[in-house]
Amino acid sequence: MPDPLRILVVHGPNLNLLGSREPAIYGNATLEEINAGLSAAAKAAGAETEFFQSNHEGALIDRIQEAPAFFDAILINPGALTHTSVALRDALAATKLPVAEVHLSNVHAREEFRRHSFVSPISVGVVCGFGAASYRLGLDGLLARLRAEPDSA
Amino acid sequence: MPDPLRILVVHGPNLNLLGSREPAIYGNATLEEINAGLSAAAKAAGAETEFFQSNHEGALIDRIQEAPAFFDAILINPGALTHTSVALRDALAATKLPVAEVHLSNVHAREEFRRHSFVSPISVGVVCGFGAASYRLGLDGLLARLRAEPDSA
Amino acid sequence: MPDPLRILVVHGPNLNLLGSREPAIYGNATLEEINAGLSAAAKAAGAETEFFQSNHEGALIDRIQEAPAFFDAILINPGALTHTSVALRDALAATKLPVAEVHLSNVHAREEFRRHSFVSPISVGVVCGFGAASYRLGLDGLLARLRAEPDSA
Amino acid sequence: MPDPLRILVVHGPNLNLLGSREPAIYGNATLEEINAGLSAAAKAAGAETEFFQSNHEGALIDRIQEAPAFFDAILINPGALTHTSVALRDALAATKLPVAEVHLSNVHAREEFRRHSFVSPISVGVVCGFGAASYRLGLDGLLARLRAEPDSA
Amino acid sequence: MPDPLRILVVHGPNLNLLGSREPAIYGNATLEEINAGLSAAAKAAGAETEFFQSNHEGALIDRIQEAPAFFDAILINPGALTHTSVALRDALAATKLPVAEVHLSNVHAREEFRRHSFVSPISVGVVCGFGAASYRLGLDGLLARLRAEPDSA
Amino acid sequence: MPDPLRILVVHGPNLNLLGSREPAIYGNATLEEINAGLSAAAKAAGAETEFFQSNHEGALIDRIQEAPAFFDAILINPGALTHTSVALRDALAATKLPVAEVHLSNVHAREEFRRHSFVSPISVGVVCGFGAASYRLGLDGLLARLRAEPDSA
Amino acid sequence: MPDPLRILVVHGPNLNLLGSREPAIYGNATLEEINAGLSAAAKAAGAETEFFQSNHEGALIDRIQEAPAFFDAILINPGALTHTSVALRDALAATKLPVAEVHLSNVHAREEFRRHSFVSPISVGVVCGFGAASYRLGLDGLLARLRAEPDSA
Amino acid sequence: MPDPLRILVVHGPNLNLLGSREPAIYGNATLEEINAGLSAAAKAAGAETEFFQSNHEGALIDRIQEAPAFFDAILINPGALTHTSVALRDALAATKLPVAEVHLSNVHAREEFRRHSFVSPISVGVVCGFGAASYRLGLDGLLARLRAEPDSA
Amino acid sequence: MPDPLRILVVHGPNLNLLGSREPAIYGNATLEEINAGLSAAAKAAGAETEFFQSNHEGALIDRIQEAPAFFDAILINPGALTHTSVALRDALAATKLPVAEVHLSNVHAREEFRRHSFVSPISVGVVCGFGAASYRLGLDGLLARLRAEPDSA
Amino acid sequence: MPDPLRILVVHGPNLNLLGSREPAIYGNATLEEINAGLSAAAKAAGAETEFFQSNHEGALIDRIQEAPAFFDAILINPGALTHTSVALRDALAATKLPVAEVHLSNVHAREEFRRHSFVSPISVGVVCGFGAASYRLGLDGLLARLRAEPDSA
Amino acid sequence: MPDPLRILVVHGPNLNLLGSREPAIYGNATLEEINAGLSAAAKAAGAETEFFQSNHEGALIDRIQEAPAFFDAILINPGALTHTSVALRDALAATKLPVAEVHLSNVHAREEFRRHSFVSPISVGVVCGFGAASYRLGLDGLLARLRAEPDSA
Amino acid sequence: MPDPLRILVVHGPNLNLLGSREPAIYGNATLEEINAGLSAAAKAAGAETEFFQSNHEGALIDRIQEAPAFFDAILINPGALTHTSVALRDALAATKLPVAEVHLSNVHAREEFRRHSFVSPISVGVVCGFGAASYRLGLDGLLARLRAEPDSA
Repeated sequence: MPDPLRILVVHGPNLNLLGSREPAIYGNATLEEINAGLSAAAKAAGAETEFFQSNHEGALIDRIQEAPAFFDAILINPGALTHTSVALRDALAATKLPVAEVHLSNVHAREEFRRHSFVSPISVGVVCGFGAASYRLGLDGLLARLRAEPDSA
Repeated sequence: MPDPLRILVVHGPNLNLLGSREPAIYGNATLEEINAGLSAAAKAAGAETEFFQSNHEGALIDRIQEAPAFFDAILINPGALTHTSVALRDALAATKLPVAEVHLSNVHAREEFRRHSFVSPISVGVVCGFGAASYRLGLDGLLARLRAEPDSA
Repeated sequence: MPDPLRILVVHGPNLNLLGSREPAIYGNATLEEINAGLSAAAKAAGAETEFFQSNHEGALIDRIQEAPAFFDAILINPGALTHTSVALRDALAATKLPVAEVHLSNVHAREEFRRHSFVSPISVGVVCGFGAASYRLGLDGLLARLRAEPDSA
Repeated sequence: MPDPLRILVVHGPNLNLLGSREPAIYGNATLEEINAGLSAAAKAAGAETEFFQSNHEGALIDRIQEAPAFFDAILINPGALTHTSVALRDALAATKLPVAEVHLSNVHAREEFRRHSFVSPISVGVVCGFGAASYRLGLDGLLARLRAEPDSA
Repeated sequence: MPDPLRILVVHGPNLNLLGSREPAIYGNATLEEINAGLSAAAKAAGAETEFFQSNHEGALIDRIQEAPAFFDAILINPGALTHTSVALRDALAATKLPVAEVHLSNVHAREEFRRHSFVSPISVGVVCGFGAASYRLGLDGLLARLRAEPDSA
Repeated sequence: MPDPLRILVVHGPNLNLLGSREPAIYGNATLEEINAGLSAAAKAAGAETEFFQSNHEGALIDRIQEAPAFFDAILINPGALTHTSVALRDALAATKLPVAEVHLSNVHAREEFRRHSFVSPISVGVVCGFGAASYRLGLDGLLARLRAEPDSA
Repeated sequence: MPDPLRILVVHGPNLNLLGSREPAIYGNATLEEINAGLSAAAKAAGAETEFFQSNHEGALIDRIQEAPAFFDAILINPGALTHTSVALRDALAATKLPVAEVHLSNVHAREEFRRHSFVSPISVGVVCGFGAASYRLGLDGLLARLRAEPDSA
Repeated sequence: MPDPLRILVVHGPNLNLLGSREPAIYGNATLEEINAGLSAAAKAAGAETEFFQSNHEGALIDRIQEAPAFFDAILINPGALTHTSVALRDALAATKLPVAEVHLSNVHAREEFRRHSFVSPISVGVVCGFGAASYRLGLDGLLARLRAEPDSA
Repeated sequence: MPDPLRILVVHGPNLNLLGSREPAIYGNATLEEINAGLSAAAKAAGAETEFFQSNHEGALIDRIQEAPAFFDAILINPGALTHTSVALRDALAATKLPVAEVHLSNVHAREEFRRHSFVSPISVGVVCGFGAASYRLGLDGLLARLRAEPDSA
Repeated sequence: MPDPLRILVVHGPNLNLLGSREPAIYGNATLEEINAGLSAAAKAAGAETEFFQSNHEGALIDRIQEAPAFFDAILINPGALTHTSVALRDALAATKLPVAEVHLSNVHAREEFRRHSFVSPISVGVVCGFGAASYRLGLDGLLARLRAEPDSA
Repeated sequence: MPDPLRILVVHGPNLNLLGSREPAIYGNATLEEINAGLSAAAKAAGAETEFFQSNHEGALIDRIQEAPAFFDAILINPGALTHTSVALRDALAATKLPVAEVHLSNVHAREEFRRHSFVSPISVGVVCGFGAASYRLGLDGLLARLRAEPDSA
Repeated sequence: MPDPLRILVVHGPNLNLLGSREPAIYGNATLEEINAGLSAAAKAAGAETEFFQSNHEGALIDRIQEAPAFFDAILINPGALTHTSVALRDALAATKLPVAEVHLSNVHAREEFRRHSFVSPISVGVVCGFGAASYRLGLDGLLARLRAEPDSA
């Protein structure tokens, strides 16, 4: 696996609102702050990141389809599309890249419909509930996977 | 929050078999290796860990009930009890400690009955699918939570 | 609440077809005629309206996200997204503005899948089945709510 | 359609308690106040109203059965019978009069069992969540319908 | 029915990837090759075709809405939107054109959620499982229908 | 694959009634006319056909069991057995021949119980809704498959 | 069994409307005509009848509770209460009299919720769909039962 | 309607066992006795009957398909096929003759799976629970229907 | 809490039959005997009781609505309305009085539909299965609650 | 029934935490206090009690299996095992002793999964929601049952 | 019980294919070999066997109906009819003979619809998954039962 | 496969009660008698057996985990854990030994919840309903499997 590893970070609908939207659930960090933190954490771990957010399912799919040529893995918070979008799932699966799914909130402690994810079954792993830290944990998990260290805790 | 933070790490039924049991699903690391890795990672992060594994739901509950006096948080891989034990859930909730639920495998990519967790709704967050690394990610998430850094990725 | 009250009126997918699309179900009024009628009714009631229609979920979300800075409430006919879009629901909820959901047809007298709405639980109220008048009724309801007159029939 | 239009307003079980019963959900207006407001609004719109409330399903049915001879439409808040009474639905359908169903609270934001209505499929339209104003909106919708103005917002 | 018949061919999300995406499921033909084959087959059958692919539900709806002025029928592979988009269904139904729904793979032999289609009930007919040939079969079916030959095998 | 390809065409219960049974749903062609059309189409495509119809599930199974020795593929309209017969499914699967399932009517636009097929998951592909033409389309699809042309539209 | 046999005939909600209510479903006979016909048929068969109709579940229960002292069996068309009233079921069961349940319309060919009856499991038998004749058939069935002739067709 | 009316009486699987099979549920009358009783009753009512029993679904369908040329209506006890055979339902519907469905036992008081009938929705009416008398009641109902006397009890 | 505590005891439909109705399930005590026993037990415990039974849901609601002015708590056996009446639930909840729900029989050991109660979620507690003693136990539980002794066994 | 009656009181998982665990739900009394209260109440009623608590399903079963030799009845709060343990149910049923099931909290007012009990159907009766008093009420109910006083309130 | 015991062995649809059909699931033994093995095993155990296979549900029922006169028990592998045939179940139950149900494959490890059997509830016992040996085990079980040795392992 | 084959026989909760517990369902043989019979049967078949019973899920898992070192296969009657324990299933699957699941009673003829087994899908085969003989049949099946004789009946 050539270094530095390149990770595409994808944020789904409404995540551009972070910092202002329901902080009790989603925390106070803005998306820019989360991206900056992730970028620094990635650099420290010998990886590069690029970020993409959209409220448009189609735009997300367009971007994900291009990923295989430029990235080694995808870190995604699909937002509300987690629960409804088979098209996003298919786009992610078609990249054949390892995918980590992350959520800021603990989706299992909210409405029933948030407990089902179309993305989880085609992901390597899933992290939820740790606020902005969920992204960093997902990144770490992806890097461990890409570097073939699945067995070291 | 006084340092070092003390974390109780709990492993549910059959996790004592790690390393030998279906490595394609659960990886090659033994439970001792996972615990050693976690212990080192915790120490590096200024935390202490204790470990407990049992195949007995009752023994797990006994141990968890004692946790509030000695620990600041619980990191648990409930194994198969994830899907069936309300008693374990109640024991965890009764501690009022923050709980992180982790799984080695991606439970969402396996049998349908593994997609439901009684523990998730009373946890801070959940990590699954990253093999042994799931434990370390869960530990990191717990520490970030205990140190009130939920918003830094 | 400063006057005039400003209401964002949002029309979801396929509502641009009004007047031509299945008049037996949706009536003969075009969207322009409905908007004109609503605008006049709002003005008469001391309110201002702006209108937005799109067949793109993402475009609807983009527009709704900007609403808090310019509007006091949202009147929305989510069209078919009513039944499928968690992202739209989340965008509406994130505005923290009062939302009124309206439908031209009586969704309860049609296919079973039209009886469930992701938007209703985060709305103030819902009106359906009165044709183009549903919009006016929804507007009236919103204004009564904004002016704190919920108890006068 | 001869004027003035005559509207029978029917209130189901427990609505006689309005004003005292859980004001956070149902508002502070008493049933008398709601009726007075409705009566005035109807008069202003060139319509006449009569009111009937009962906690007895049978009494409601008896009254509704007599409606065709004296009224042009029915405005009904079926209360809890909304979710359980096929007999009430059949009585309303048998009148062949246009029916508007209204609810004070947003039934979609409450218990799951309140999301299903036996009355909605045989109604012209449904209004809920606007407090006492729901009645007035339902009345307006009925009048628009009776006067064949479904397409004007 | 004037000749040549004009058919709008619509491809949903991720179908632009054909030829590279999971060939075991979707075959090796690229979308361009499929379109070229279809175009030739149509010409041979005295029909004209136009093609449109998008990963954006909204763009698909925009295009479908314009179809009645220019086309006699629609041949669509809705991709993953098959299972989730009521808006696409409504757009197709609003054209009042005959619609044929096609799928490359046998959707009935895959995940359970792929067995339900929102589009099928408003289509003339459905073809799935024959790879790229599904498109040609769907085209043939549509032409037979448009030429009123439903009874000749 | 030796030519001419031999196709067994199987018609399930009640299909002997074609031409007289509910023409609005099933068309006016008799089974003989459909068979004749199919036979001609097959011949034109370099294939041979044999036909079998029965109202007896057991007779259909008997015939299908013998198919591997004499045929290269099976084209079947299982009629009502589509929805109820596991035995027919097992018989078809046991032949290991490619199977195409066809229906005259669009089963997805009828009663809910007609939307489930026991045969589809073990078929190559499915065609429905094109009237008698469904058979010809299914035949074409089978031939394309047998001749390894799945990628040409 | 002493003769003449005495049969209580009970009609549930809205059956007082017979003759005027949706004749396409319920026929043109009024309840009086049905009762007269039944009375004559009973007399001819050596039985006596009494009739009771109410729109009030409670009144129906009151009357049924008194039946054991005066009647040998109950013939009931529970109307809409068929599908919703456990209390009516319990009242009928408590009489320990043989009960025949009848319906004018074929409840199995209408809305899904009309296919379930709380009364059927505690009845001797059920007749539906034969219009006013359903009552007579139910009466005949009851008499055959009371006279111990269940085996003669 | 020409007289005498001709009724085809069809008995499904296992009904040839009547008289010996579980008399507590099905009564003591043999099928021959039931047929004899029915024949006499029909003759008394100016009708003719023919009888057919088979344990073979296919044979039942074959016979039913021929009915339109020789009979005015069908009286059927589909036995266990009631709950499982769409093919039988389709055969009956295809005859376009009025069908009465009868059962000896009260199917609603037995196993849950006996409460659903594929035949009921396409029947004129249904009679169950009156033992052998169910047949006679079904015959009477059919004759009343054929003679257009639905409104006389 | 002023003494003596006043308890309204409400009996739902068919409970007036106690003593005669299915004693194997409901016991031999008449309602009068139960009331007398309860009255004595209440007096011994320093409380007063009043009793009300009706087979009319409406009458029960009327009575319950008046309770807040005269009673400190409600002891209710809703009978069959337990499982079907949202209106009764709402009436009880509107009183804001503590409610104890009791049943003579063990509803969990009977038909499946008796396992669900609309009343339980808005009650303080529930007692079932102890025959007439269920009432006394419910009374004792209410009194303990009113006197703030929930923790003494 | 020899006196004093001997009652085995069994407490399931997590009930050893009483007094400290979520007092808002479970009250402030410790298990020792509850046991002491119960013991006194039993003595006053001429009965003897023994107590057993365990977090181990197996230990509970071991103890229950021995009960028939030493006890006349079992009073059990199965805690979370209520909802998940068929083994506990079978152990209780195998004793053939009368069982009373009690819960401190009103399980019907909590999470949906707490509304189902495997124990209730094999119990004499169930008490829930009265806090520690639930135990005493259950004891009283058992004693009444053992002394054959089911009919005295 | 007279010796030798006579056992009717019934094989359902497609079992005539054994040896050639999907040997990975069903094994390599032909039906003749299985029958020969069973016959020998029966003889060794002092029993006689007769064999019947058919793909026709009706033929199976015809044969089973005759069994009581000639056999002491039935050993049946109902094949796919296991999951769909109520008629077969009823025929078996009507014989009142002890029935053993066997399957070559482990039906619980295959498609979900193979986990439900209409035959199991009316059988003495069920054996599945042991390949051809399932038959011998089922035979042994039946003989043990007929000879009243249920308690010896 | 070295001889003698070694079989671990595992009995789940409550099976230590055999002989006394509900003999109508489970027979009169004690567990010791069953074990003795099995041991003798095994010896006669050239196999050795060891026995383990526990009411503790954890103890069963502990024992099963050790099996691979000492045994060639596992014969298990999981008792009530059949229906609830994923942990037991996982322990059995982790041994990679062939497993035979047996039940004394016919679980398919009892409560609905006993029809689902977590163990069956990971077993070689299942035997139920033959009383103590079920064990011997399961043993025979396992031995046939281990000796590669799946095709001899």
